[in-house]
Amino acid sequence: MPSDRLFGPSLTTPAMLRATSDEAWLVAMLRFESALATAQGRLGLISPDAAGRIAAVCDPAGFDVALIGTQAAVSASPVVPVIARLRQLAGDAAGPYVHRDATSQDVIDSAMMLVARDGLDLLLDDLSTLARACLMLAQRHRETPMAARTLLRAALPTTFGCKAGMWLQGLMESRRRLRVIRRDRLAVQLAGPAGTLNRPDLVAELASELALRTPALPWHTARGRVVELGGALVQAAGAAAKIAGDVLLLVQDEVGEVTLAEAGASSAMAHKRNAAAAVEAQAAFKTACAQAWVLSASAAGEHERAAGAWQAEWPALSELLRMTAGAVGRTLETVGALRPDAERMRDNLERYVPPPHDEHIRAAAAVAGRAIEMYTKELRDD
Amino acid sequence: MPSDRLFGPSLTTPAMLRATSDEAWLVAMLRFESALATAQGRLGLISPDAAGRIAAVCDPAGFDVALIGTQAAVSASPVVPVIARLRQLAGDAAGPYVHRDATSQDVIDSAMMLVARDGLDLLLDDLSTLARACLMLAQRHRETPMAARTLLRAALPTTFGCKAGMWLQGLMESRRRLRVIRRDRLAVQLAGPAGTLNRPDLVAELASELALRTPALPWHTARGRVVELGGALVQAAGAAAKIAGDVLLLVQDEVGEVTLAEAGASSAMAHKRNAAAAVEAQAAFKTACAQAWVLSASAAGEHERAAGAWQAEWPALSELLRMTAGAVGRTLETVGALRPDAERMRDNLERYVPPPHDEHIRAAAAVAGRAIEMYTKELRDD
Amino acid sequence: MPSDRLFGPSLTTPAMLRATSDEAWLVAMLRFESALATAQGRLGLISPDAAGRIAAVCDPAGFDVALIGTQAAVSASPVVPVIARLRQLAGDAAGPYVHRDATSQDVIDSAMMLVARDGLDLLLDDLSTLARACLMLAQRHRETPMAARTLLRAALPTTFGCKAGMWLQGLMESRRRLRVIRRDRLAVQLAGPAGTLNRPDLVAELASELALRTPALPWHTARGRVVELGGALVQAAGAAAKIAGDVLLLVQDEVGEVTLAEAGASSAMAHKRNAAAAVEAQAAFKTACAQAWVLSASAAGEHERAAGAWQAEWPALSELLRMTAGAVGRTLETVGALRPDAERMRDNLERYVPPPHDEHIRAAAAVAGRAIEMYTKELRDD
Amino acid sequence: MPSDRLFGPSLTTPAMLRATSDEAWLVAMLRFESALATAQGRLGLISPDAAGRIAAVCDPAGFDVALIGTQAAVSASPVVPVIARLRQLAGDAAGPYVHRDATSQDVIDSAMMLVARDGLDLLLDDLSTLARACLMLAQRHRETPMAARTLLRAALPTTFGCKAGMWLQGLMESRRRLRVIRRDRLAVQLAGPAGTLNRPDLVAELASELALRTPALPWHTARGRVVELGGALVQAAGAAAKIAGDVLLLVQDEVGEVTLAEAGASSAMAHKRNAAAAVEAQAAFKTACAQAWVLSASAAGEHERAAGAWQAEWPALSELLRMTAGAVGRTLETVGALRPDAERMRDNLERYVPPPHDEHIRAAAAVAGRAIEMYTKELRDD
Repeated sequence: MPSDRLFGPSLTTPAMLRATSDEAWLVAMLRFESALATAQGRLGLISPDAAGRIAAVCDPAGFDVALIGTQAAVSASPVVPVIARLRQLAGDAAGPYVHRDATSQDVIDSAMMLVARDGLDLLLDDLSTLARACLMLAQRHRETPMAARTLLRAALPTTFGCKAGMWLQGLMESRRRLRVIRRDRLAVQLAGPAGTLNRPDLVAELASELALRTPALPWHTARGRVVELGGALVQAAGAAAKIAGDVLLLVQDEVGEVTLAEAGASSAMAHKRNAAAAVEAQAAFKTACAQAWVLSASAAGEHERAAGAWQAEWPALSELLRMTAGAVGRTLETVGALRPDAERMRDNLERYVPPPHDEHIRAAAAVAGRAIEMYTKELRDD
Repeated sequence: MPSDRLFGPSLTTPAMLRATSDEAWLVAMLRFESALATAQGRLGLISPDAAGRIAAVCDPAGFDVALIGTQAAVSASPVVPVIARLRQLAGDAAGPYVHRDATSQDVIDSAMMLVARDGLDLLLDDLSTLARACLMLAQRHRETPMAARTLLRAALPTTFGCKAGMWLQGLMESRRRLRVIRRDRLAVQLAGPAGTLNRPDLVAELASELALRTPALPWHTARGRVVELGGALVQAAGAAAKIAGDVLLLVQDEVGEVTLAEAGASSAMAHKRNAAAAVEAQAAFKTACAQAWVLSASAAGEHERAAGAWQAEWPALSELLRMTAGAVGRTLETVGALRPDAERMRDNLERYVPPPHDEHIRAAAAVAGRAIEMYTKELRDD
Repeated sequence: MPSDRLFGPSLTTPAMLRATSDEAWLVAMLRFESALATAQGRLGLISPDAAGRIAAVCDPAGFDVALIGTQAAVSASPVVPVIARLRQLAGDAAGPYVHRDATSQDVIDSAMMLVARDGLDLLLDDLSTLARACLMLAQRHRETPMAARTLLRAALPTTFGCKAGMWLQGLMESRRRLRVIRRDRLAVQLAGPAGTLNRPDLVAELASELALRTPALPWHTARGRVVELGGALVQAAGAAAKIAGDVLLLVQDEVGEVTLAEAGASSAMAHKRNAAAAVEAQAAFKTACAQAWVLSASAAGEHERAAGAWQAEWPALSELLRMTAGAVGRTLETVGALRPDAERMRDNLERYVPPPHDEHIRAAAAVAGRAIEMYTKELRDD
Repeated sequence: MPSDRLFGPSLTTPAMLRATSDEAWLVAMLRFESALATAQGRLGLISPDAAGRIAAVCDPAGFDVALIGTQAAVSASPVVPVIARLRQLAGDAAGPYVHRDATSQDVIDSAMMLVARDGLDLLLDDLSTLARACLMLAQRHRETPMAARTLLRAALPTTFGCKAGMWLQGLMESRRRLRVIRRDRLAVQLAGPAGTLNRPDLVAELASELALRTPALPWHTARGRVVELGGALVQAAGAAAKIAGDVLLLVQDEVGEVTLAEAGASSAMAHKRNAAAAVEAQAAFKTACAQAWVLSASAAGEHERAAGAWQAEWPALSELLRMTAGAVGRTLETVGALRPDAERMRDNLERYVPPPHDEHIRAAAAVAGRAIEMYTKELRDD
């Protein structure tokens, strides 16, 4: 439902909705079949004609995604109807060479990696933009004093730049993790019906064709890649939701240390401006946590293909990508609209934190400075 | 994503997809606004003309659900754009009377209850059908001996009817719970912007108009209804998934104690027939568990309206309804296609369970008999 | 760990720690064996001598709980070593009659119900006390104006009594649910090794002996009782955590609408007073949510006894009882120490909510009044 | 509860129980305070005498863990009573220098890292032993034919060595992840009451003293380290539970492809041998999933110290370490006792999988060979 037209736009980004849509999955499955035929053609395993013909018909225009979805229910896999249609389109000569050596799981696992890659690219862009926005806040407010709050009580002085630097730290930690996964862990799957296919050359060729990693082994039953991906996504969602949560607390009328340039209207109260995007980021994070759990819990499936756990991964990963994009994207809007009120920050600090202040403010500014230096470099070099 | 066209049909039922769709939510929100105006007209709070005009324009045909979804993101609520459009459609005379006394949460909470009611009606039908199918198995196989298995090892004799009677018990437990919730806990919400509206007469009139319960108090911040609903749904999903899981184990080639009349094809192996529907029920249950957690965890929101937890409830409940329908619906298909192999059951029993058998078989048949008697009556009387 | 000596006292109550301790489980298992022998003796199934002898040795003093725990690991069940020791203590004459007709699951499921009953009794006491404390706040502050806050922004006026009345509603909803479960759903288990025992007379006698309900059927594989119990517990934890969360927000220095008489010290800042108990209630609720999920997810176990899911229920239920007691108990401390600052409430209201105020305050007081009336009666009558 | 004497030994290992015990946490907190004083002494921040005196009294023998736990509830932190006692023990001269610059969170976060490190060391040992056991199975049975099973139906031929090689892959993936975390992500925390301490020299000295990493920045509010640790632990638990689950399926009487040398007794059926350790591994994994969720969901805490989310991390991490150790440890027992029945494997293969077989068996053996080669090297080199 988060992906629907009514609630979807609040909880994710339009680009991520597209990148994880039915059509995106269909395209990814067809890219697999096309790349497989191409790779097999190149290795002389099927004729160049068959390879060319198969690649040519791997065009989503020839497929009715709703019909495939309906037919998929019969076999617990959308691959069965996709292959049937593909063979039909390929004709008598090339049809028998469609999907050769492969099994449903090869198609879906590889498609999952392709969908994840496109999703990660979007997410890493937004995460970098959000990180830059926090970096700018850290720079601009490196020395802007405010009260730090622990267990929701005013504690000692800090600076808003130090707070923004800590937000940045959370984002950069998850960005590193996602970049490593993007680079090292998104591998093609080609293991055959029983997970025993021993064709390293073909797997490498296919991986190269799809620009995914070549796995050292079939990973039908070793779901570490999916669990790690899920963990890194929910970590990013949490790093963003942390920021949105802090903003919601700072924007409280009585605190008033930040305002939001474009806050949301209330349906009933004209005077009220809600931190709508920050609220949505929180909702997206909560939903993301649930999806990440599905991926962890699905790691222990039965024998050579799980009877339920594997099938639960597909929608969970799609939804997790969407919710993470929503948490990051809505927080980006929030930070973009954020106007710190330095005067109010100083007022609250003086009112609620006993002196001395200066030494703490200097220390906080120095910590902010270290964050700024480190992450400026990291964001520039990558 | 489970709700999408590609994966949706595998994990839920077409009827539940419709009942929890964007359009269903829009219709429910409009039903609320229409019923509110009607109730207010009846109580003389607004003019009959205004009431009539508002009711007349509460027609989903006048609304673009995708546009509303996009606009909703700005205020973290689809109600804001719905009201704006409604006022526009109602015209200058009736427009100011639209949504009077109400707030976004009133609309969405009430719509949630309407969506839940329609969803529960579908679910209770399927649950009753599934219960009857298990009842029939229990009757037909009351005395069909088989091995009971504990910790996945053959234990003592039971009968297939006794096993089916225990499946039935789980279903009937959750059916009772869902019926109580359907009857007692689905209440209208009308509490105003701050949850303080004190108009019991209007609430009662609105409840009557929508055929929901009149709550004793506003429940903006007391989310027990939602938590209980979520708990009952996941319980039903679990009761169904228990059956699907047992079938998956019984259908294993080496066990072979049931076969499935219409099993699913494999994309790669012509000889193989998968228990596709049972696999899908398992996947739906896993996803349902995650959604139920979101509902429990959302119970403790901030002040008079939660900043994230409430918003996470809407998609979680929709998805939970769908996944529960999927778990129940796919298990219904599984049980419908199930062909017990009494001979194989006896073979395995004799091979793996040392005698004596007869006394245990008689006891199991008697237990089955008690289940049959009790639930026959309960399914007939309700 | 929450149950340990170091973190336990922060996250639960001493009484609940005892009620869910190793010793409490051991005592409950022995009560089962004793009651079983007594019931069998009464029905003439075993000799009065054997029954008396078995009952006499069901004394926890004769058992080393740590040794039993170690031995339990060998068979994935503490019942196996308990029975072995019990037979030894009962001697040659009575030993063979120990545990007759029963299986491990009968002992543990029944013990789980006994532990749950004692836990629920403690919890219902604390929940009632907490409800009374909230009722008193609602009465005393029925007309004390304050700002309602939605999405963490000041919305319209309410009264602190209305807020407390809503807290009360959440507590009373979960109290009703727990009372129903306490009364109707805590049943004895006696189903024999394969879940097929057909001895309604013996089950009824045993139930009467243990003061648990007589189940209509064996419920080895129908885990609705456990799922419902888990759902009701997490609901209670959420209702309490909602209060603690609101207090944490109200106690913020800038809001300052309540203070706490006995707030916690900081290890580093002498001026700081933390709402320690409220913080602990939040932590307990988060942990409770995770445990409730384990119980839901465990509903779909394999065949006649689950291979992992059932065993996960025992610690999850224990921990959920503890965490719910912690959420309720710490919130009770919080509410007990709470000092509303009516002046600060009025100040914030006037500063952040545009007039008019009076009508809203009257309405809120009236809603509070309805809550007070209804729940005064309910707390008195029960 | 899983940590208790009754259920604990079934769900974790004795060594991990000790490494995550109350005492272990106390020792870790004292190690922090001792190392802090030592580092401060070395940098001339406090006198050598004070440093020496403080280090000398950081002896757990001087502390009553139960009393500290009870006192901790007052301030939502065990650090407050630990420091109070430490000051008392240090005497008037050194007392004022105890805990200087530090805050509760510094102590607990650092202690959490120390506990995690000891836990990871235990876990990595067990994981390596389990990996070696699977490697040996892969070697010994590289060419032992059996049926692969997908969606719980016999699919194509594989070899038991190939299956074991895939088990090994899951273990090695999580081992790599845990080793990276062990090496790079376990950092000391020293950030002061507001997370603003700017003393890189002191942090580095303290880190060196505790043999933890020096963090680039304070990480009070950036919980990536904890989320990543939690993710890697549940991944390891899942990799182990996958094996245990497969064994439970293989050991079914009708399948019979493996037997277990030391299987567990039944309390009621003399003929029955349960795969108790494998059952326990499954239960531990389910519990682990719930704890990992707590850690993910706790990432988004309030401001400079979370009011509930941080406190929930401590028991969740302890329990997750224990449950992961349990999943790995019980699977290790299972694999140690495992006796493959090559004849039964071949029988089932021939009965349920149509020919041809040979080509598939050769491919599976080759895949197993690649796993063997790669992981032999990896296990040797590390």
